[in-house]
Amino acid sequence: MTAPARGFPEAEFERRTRNAQALMAEAGLSALLLTTEPEIRYYTGFLTRFWESPTRPWYVVLPATGQPIAVIPSIGAHLMRQTWITDLRTWQAPDYSDDGVGLLSDTLREVTLMGGVIGLADGMESHVRMPRADLLALESALAPRKLASDAQITRRLRLIKSDAEIAKIRIAAGIADRAFDRVTEIAQTGTPLSTVFRRFQASCLDEGADWVPYLAGAADHRGYGDVISPATDAPLETGHVLMLDTGLMHDGYFCDFDRNFSIGAPAAEVQSAHARLIDATEAGFAAARPGAVIADLFHAMNAVANPDGNTMDAGRLGHGLGMQLTEWPSIIPADQTELVPGMVLTLEPSVTLADGKIMVHEENIVIRETGAEWLSTPQGSEIRVLT
Amino acid sequence: MTAPARGFPEAEFERRTRNAQALMAEAGLSALLLTTEPEIRYYTGFLTRFWESPTRPWYVVLPATGQPIAVIPSIGAHLMRQTWITDLRTWQAPDYSDDGVGLLSDTLREVTLMGGVIGLADGMESHVRMPRADLLALESALAPRKLASDAQITRRLRLIKSDAEIAKIRIAAGIADRAFDRVTEIAQTGTPLSTVFRRFQASCLDEGADWVPYLAGAADHRGYGDVISPATDAPLETGHVLMLDTGLMHDGYFCDFDRNFSIGAPAAEVQSAHARLIDATEAGFAAARPGAVIADLFHAMNAVANPDGNTMDAGRLGHGLGMQLTEWPSIIPADQTELVPGMVLTLEPSVTLADGKIMVHEENIVIRETGAEWLSTPQGSEIRVLT
Repeated sequence: MTAPARGFPEAEFERRTRNAQALMAEAGLSALLLTTEPEIRYYTGFLTRFWESPTRPWYVVLPATGQPIAVIPSIGAHLMRQTWITDLRTWQAPDYSDDGVGLLSDTLREVTLMGGVIGLADGMESHVRMPRADLLALESALAPRKLASDAQITRRLRLIKSDAEIAKIRIAAGIADRAFDRVTEIAQTGTPLSTVFRRFQASCLDEGADWVPYLAGAADHRGYGDVISPATDAPLETGHVLMLDTGLMHDGYFCDFDRNFSIGAPAAEVQSAHARLIDATEAGFAAARPGAVIADLFHAMNAVANPDGNTMDAGRLGHGLGMQLTEWPSIIPADQTELVPGMVLTLEPSVTLADGKIMVHEENIVIRETGAEWLSTPQGSEIRVLT
Repeated sequence: MTAPARGFPEAEFERRTRNAQALMAEAGLSALLLTTEPEIRYYTGFLTRFWESPTRPWYVVLPATGQPIAVIPSIGAHLMRQTWITDLRTWQAPDYSDDGVGLLSDTLREVTLMGGVIGLADGMESHVRMPRADLLALESALAPRKLASDAQITRRLRLIKSDAEIAKIRIAAGIADRAFDRVTEIAQTGTPLSTVFRRFQASCLDEGADWVPYLAGAADHRGYGDVISPATDAPLETGHVLMLDTGLMHDGYFCDFDRNFSIGAPAAEVQSAHARLIDATEAGFAAARPGAVIADLFHAMNAVANPDGNTMDAGRLGHGLGMQLTEWPSIIPADQTELVPGMVLTLEPSVTLADGKIMVHEENIVIRETGAEWLSTPQGSEIRVLT
């Protein structure tokens, strides 16, 4: 399989922009102010790892009509000019006297009327990536215009992936699939967990990942304590259950799934827990069809994974996936989001073993007209065994 | 060299906490509310890549006396319990009805009096990592207590690194040094830049990086267009200047420096530009001693790099470094921060070549009583050559 061209045709960004503007009109918003990496990339295609640096704020203004306007540090102009954005306004950041707030407020005043309402992400999973003092100054400078909720417009649009987006996630998942198949080469009894982590990330890169923004995992006897820890230097021991959970990136899109391995023959309760996790995942997959709601997936998986009704500390059994490692929605009983074609989700059931240990399994799926389709390769009941 | 033990002794976190509390008393703050990864890790030691997921907010409250209090999603409790923090308050996130705001506001009200002022990061390089709607709800719930600036307390403390922190940065820099020495093995004429990026990240891991949060670079004839781009699939050509700039991590601490390579014998202006960059870096190094101010470093480097007085779009010639890829301060003419022992900085002069191309060189240093000390290995005038 050869990878499709990087990036997207301009039509994809035009469509996203038009769709947002239609929702803005409905919500009575004169503009959207975007401040975070995924928001800005969604409408512009601006892809850089430079967001790792917290120094500079980056802004994009989405007016009620027309193209997005980039209000960004001059260090990013060369890269932004390679996107479809033509209206670029730059300042030389960092500027201790005014780090872009004047330029941003001029831009927002230019594209909105005095009584305008400017939408800013304010809901769950969001934050405003600008200094709080600058946000307060901006708010004053814009009066009588108001900053208000963005009505979750970007979140709502991002929930449904285009075929081009799904293709990228599928490639990312394929890379991780192949890296997981090579764990036998890199992890044996005695290998320090930190070495396994390093080698696994190198396998992901070797298989084609652009970079590996996320790897967590654990190795312990008969389950593990949590799913978010970095590696220790402790060596793998016979009887350990090793879990690796990676979010690697291809062309700006993530996969996010894990695999469990038994070091040596698995204990009966480990094998049984693994089989239960696979059955729970399959139950989630079967329930994942248009018309169902997210809560249905929770109940379908939890009924199999935890037939005694226990829930677990992780708080959810999966989530959206795309430009970010985790996206809206969360697979929890309270989520009544209706499944529609184009949603990409992780199914992530969890079981509790003795002594508070847990095991977690995770796959990635996309919702199609007729039901769910795997993006990662579904696993069999038997836990993988390393020696 | 064997790496020192991971993490820090509890005394380091106690000292950080006491120092913050002394500054809080000076600033009239009853508590600090911490919401971002580096702030929370600085006081607790909580190290996880799980911050890659935007779903859940994480809070730490630093009261006027006593230990920090963690107010966090239950999924993080197991890992937080391994730190020195003993007061943990958790909720099962995500919770669509109250995602921790009630618990946080109860905690803040418990540790502050009615007229108390609670400090929140609000200056440059900061943001508040919580949904804006939750922040506004918290502000209401806390009244008549006020949310105000944190007086840059955490930023001021983090500016000066302890010996234990410097040791971690030195190890990170050593790993990158060795990875750069292996670029000859992984990059030749015809190698796609994206392949160079993948292999370089794998080299970093192989040399001991825990993970590689940052890699940018470029390859083009007689300089490159910017320093923040991800890789294209274009192959290296004879005459290209290849630049790789990495921020890799060891035990929670970054290095951040770059190296330039000429594919084949360098053009005269490339070699001359490289020599000028090295001279500029050395000039910055010589100027970097206690009592000087940051602006002195800018002028020392820029006088050599750009004797015609040109400045460049990057906006600065280096910055602080530590738990983040870039930290306060910025090496710009406006920065009057006095250099004191324990500051870790990058020196990052930049020159402009024909057709708007640039070249950038970067090293990492620490300020000691008697002057600067290299953390990365300083380079000679001759640009490295690949074939």
